[in-house]
Amino acid sequence: MNKTHPALGKPVRIEYSARHVHLSQEDQEVLFGAGYKMTVLKELSQTGQYAYKEKVTVKGPKGEFEARVLGPCRKQSQVELAWSDGRRIGAATPVRVSGDLAGSGGGVILAGPEGSVKLKEGVINDERHLHVSDAEAAGLGLKNGDLIDISVPGETPIIVREVIVRVHPSFRMSVHLDTDEANAASLEEQGAAGEIVGYHPKEGGQEEHFFTDV
Amino acid sequence: MNKTHPALGKPVRIEYSARHVHLSQEDQEVLFGAGYKMTVLKELSQTGQYAYKEKVTVKGPKGEFEARVLGPCRKQSQVELAWSDGRRIGAATPVRVSGDLAGSGGGVILAGPEGSVKLKEGVINDERHLHVSDAEAAGLGLKNGDLIDISVPGETPIIVREVIVRVHPSFRMSVHLDTDEANAASLEEQGAAGEIVGYHPKEGGQEEHFFTDV
Repeated sequence: MNKTHPALGKPVRIEYSARHVHLSQEDQEVLFGAGYKMTVLKELSQTGQYAYKEKVTVKGPKGEFEARVLGPCRKQSQVELAWSDGRRIGAATPVRVSGDLAGSGGGVILAGPEGSVKLKEGVINDERHLHVSDAEAAGLGLKNGDLIDISVPGETPIIVREVIVRVHPSFRMSVHLDTDEANAASLEEQGAAGEIVGYHPKEGGQEEHFFTDV
Repeated sequence: MNKTHPALGKPVRIEYSARHVHLSQEDQEVLFGAGYKMTVLKELSQTGQYAYKEKVTVKGPKGEFEARVLGPCRKQSQVELAWSDGRRIGAATPVRVSGDLAGSGGGVILAGPEGSVKLKEGVINDERHLHVSDAEAAGLGLKNGDLIDISVPGETPIIVREVIVRVHPSFRMSVHLDTDEANAASLEEQGAAGEIVGYHPKEGGQEEHFFTDV
């Protein structure tokens, strides 16, 4: 069995996120009022990131739903939806890495208790990604922008393909999926033990796969 | 690359079903009235199976939604839900092959215009399956009950694992997934071109995988 790349066969923690919103400071003030202080509900697995108690309403051409706000504020508001969320409210959800918002989905209204904004862009289906620190990436032979395939256990197991590797000193190693992917695997809780089963280098080179015999 | 089993690398049509209900004749009469004639909306890809215009309400402990009725009637009513459907209404959805209902999920009420029934069992997450005719199965070296892995294309590609092979003379070759799996791959329409990438024989023997370099 071909298993030469050091990442292949390595375990990885699986996390998944429901739809959520990151607000710019400016948009937060419109939605919640100037000077409003958001309430931290819990710290997230990536250091310095928080889920707030507050939610906003996300309105698309065909429907609306609530979505939790995550903090701290970002330069530009960003709405992260699963594919099925986008279909439900009629919003396009181009697959993008977080923060890569130029020309991403728009036409969606965010409404809070004090006001609302209409986004010209910022709606995305967050590209499946592996958070990994520099040291962890070096140990696995992975570089920022590489794509990997991850075996997701569960009652109805799947392999998610083309998971982008995102390297940063502050990151803790985990794969981030959305609810559509977690539902497909019938995942009941965070922290399932996944496995890296495929490697696609960013710049040419040899693709490698190790497909487990389960 | 190891690619010896004749099914590996073979193309297969991908279809997916939204949640739906098969009714027994008895339950249909309770829900729609004795002698009621259902209206065919369209014929399905498997010969002799129909989607009806009629829908029923499926009520669980935590919520309810509508589901289309498929025909003709079966010996026992069967409710096929995706994992996320079951979570939404608080219903257990054990993974079962269609018709294998002993001890499957219960406690769900089906309501129609004329009455309702409470199911003791019959709620399932239909096991991912490949419909295939005897002749097609022989050509692919597949037997009823084998498990295969299928690569599903789409903007966010996945591999669905442990797809059970179901052989019958009347079947036309296609893979049947549910909406959670279709959403995970961002499938926009029926008929995507999948590929068989793994083979697990029903009774022991050699597991084989061919993982495409895409």
